[in-house]
Amino acid sequence: MFGLTVLGNNSAIPAFDRHPTAQALTFADQVYLIDCGEGTQTQIAKYKIRRSRINHIFISHLHGDHYFGLIGLISSFSLMGRTAPLHLYAPAELQQILQLQMDVASNILPYPLHFHAHPTGHQIILDDGKIEVFVFPTKHRIKCYGFLFKERKWPRQIIKEAVLKYNVPAVFYQRLQQGEDYVAKDGKTLVNSILTTANKPGKEYAYTADTIFDPSLCKYFEGADLLYHETTYMNDLEKKAAERFHSTTKQAGEIAKTAKVKRLIIGHFSSKYEMLDDLLDETRAVFKNSDLGIEGVTFII
Amino acid sequence: MFGLTVLGNNSAIPAFDRHPTAQALTFADQVYLIDCGEGTQTQIAKYKIRRSRINHIFISHLHGDHYFGLIGLISSFSLMGRTAPLHLYAPAELQQILQLQMDVASNILPYPLHFHAHPTGHQIILDDGKIEVFVFPTKHRIKCYGFLFKERKWPRQIIKEAVLKYNVPAVFYQRLQQGEDYVAKDGKTLVNSILTTANKPGKEYAYTADTIFDPSLCKYFEGADLLYHETTYMNDLEKKAAERFHSTTKQAGEIAKTAKVKRLIIGHFSSKYEMLDDLLDETRAVFKNSDLGIEGVTFII
Repeated sequence: MFGLTVLGNNSAIPAFDRHPTAQALTFADQVYLIDCGEGTQTQIAKYKIRRSRINHIFISHLHGDHYFGLIGLISSFSLMGRTAPLHLYAPAELQQILQLQMDVASNILPYPLHFHAHPTGHQIILDDGKIEVFVFPTKHRIKCYGFLFKERKWPRQIIKEAVLKYNVPAVFYQRLQQGEDYVAKDGKTLVNSILTTANKPGKEYAYTADTIFDPSLCKYFEGADLLYHETTYMNDLEKKAAERFHSTTKQAGEIAKTAKVKRLIIGHFSSKYEMLDDLLDETRAVFKNSDLGIEGVTFII
Repeated sequence: MFGLTVLGNNSAIPAFDRHPTAQALTFADQVYLIDCGEGTQTQIAKYKIRRSRINHIFISHLHGDHYFGLIGLISSFSLMGRTAPLHLYAPAELQQILQLQMDVASNILPYPLHFHAHPTGHQIILDDGKIEVFVFPTKHRIKCYGFLFKERKWPRQIIKEAVLKYNVPAVFYQRLQQGEDYVAKDGKTLVNSILTTANKPGKEYAYTADTIFDPSLCKYFEGADLLYHETTYMNDLEKKAAERFHSTTKQAGEIAKTAKVKRLIIGHFSSKYEMLDDLLDETRAVFKNSDLGIEGVTFII
């Protein structure tokens, strides 16, 4: 089960008490932070996200509304005496920016900061045993990346009664979960299907960052349980959206429909919209199971 | 007359809804922004500071709580279509940081950004005809600078009745204000004191940024109308303050007293203090005319 808390849902200029992009994806005992616009550390405190659980941060691209809050968070971690390693997945150019900012402050972090530059293309960038994270390119004005978070599940689930009945030792459980048969001490083979059942697939959350309308992205998150897609503009500004490499409400709905995802949340709202109801209506007209990515709301997947 | 609005009064880590350092000094039709911690653009909106009046920004030093909000403000100016030049006075190293951040975003500002690197020592860095700004070094962990804002006034004030009586042409007024005598068309000399009176001295505001207790600073702002001095810690943490190149409540009061300023405001409060009354009491015990630099409050000078 994932919990996705929206920390910022506005596009570039903060307005109407909406903040630039940031999301906290909670899974097991970890918080995976996705983008980190200015003020994210304040939003983290406001919505009681546990900082100590943040060990992995993913930055989609280097427009300021997606990363200007990162150096502040990194510095605060330092001032709070953090010692646990922090993993940062971001466009390569970010490393030099952060390093310069730490150098001029004579700031030596008391914890290891591991920088993972985004690879090109569709690749897995993290597998911590609980979650797999894939990166994929989106189409924006500058290099931009989306992420797919995939709950890591073994293909098979153990039938407790069966393993006890046949005295299968616990050390073999993981191999059972991977589908192996078990050969007992007496030489008899117990086929896997006696000891396990097919597992439910892991939950999936796709974050498409900033992007022009691009149905070719759908292949990266087909059937995902939750999709976040930007809706900077309403449908009447489709042309403007395309010029600025952004998407509209209707387009977000179309991507969700094409990719056959189960649920859609929208965000990255232009500061021209004070009220957001109309954006939701337009999106729902195309894809019913849509919601506004309201700040502070946690979506359970 | 100056108006000084405190936009952020906390030290490094934002806490208790207090923000990192920023101040807006309003004078005539201009807003002079002093430091720009993370979230300053939001504070500017909250306290209705007119962005279009901000043409000069002063950064004291490159610890993040004094400048992490600058790139966001600069970017927002850009998105809002600003065309007026912006003057930035800051430690030299900031230029490269900003340039890198703009380069990776393919951001070309639609307005001229003039970068003025702080000189060494005590020097005048701005004289726009209305205000003179002096920079001076403070003693902090890294290079740090304070600023003195001085209302520009001519030494003499014109006596309207006198200049009319003696038919002094208006083009000569400025020279009268500077103390010159006037030689009339008939060759007679009118001594300056017949046409002018001594002007009141211009108002002065001194901002000492982050600094260890250092009475040698007093020479830069003797007799100022208002002094801002940091009070990161209370008096019992004098040793810790010195180790971290910060000051205490009592020390701020002592600086105000030694420099014979008229009024003191304190700020840069450590996140260890939720309530601030005790800090004010300690400061007032040394220098009576002291106030807390509460966010959103405008001090009239």
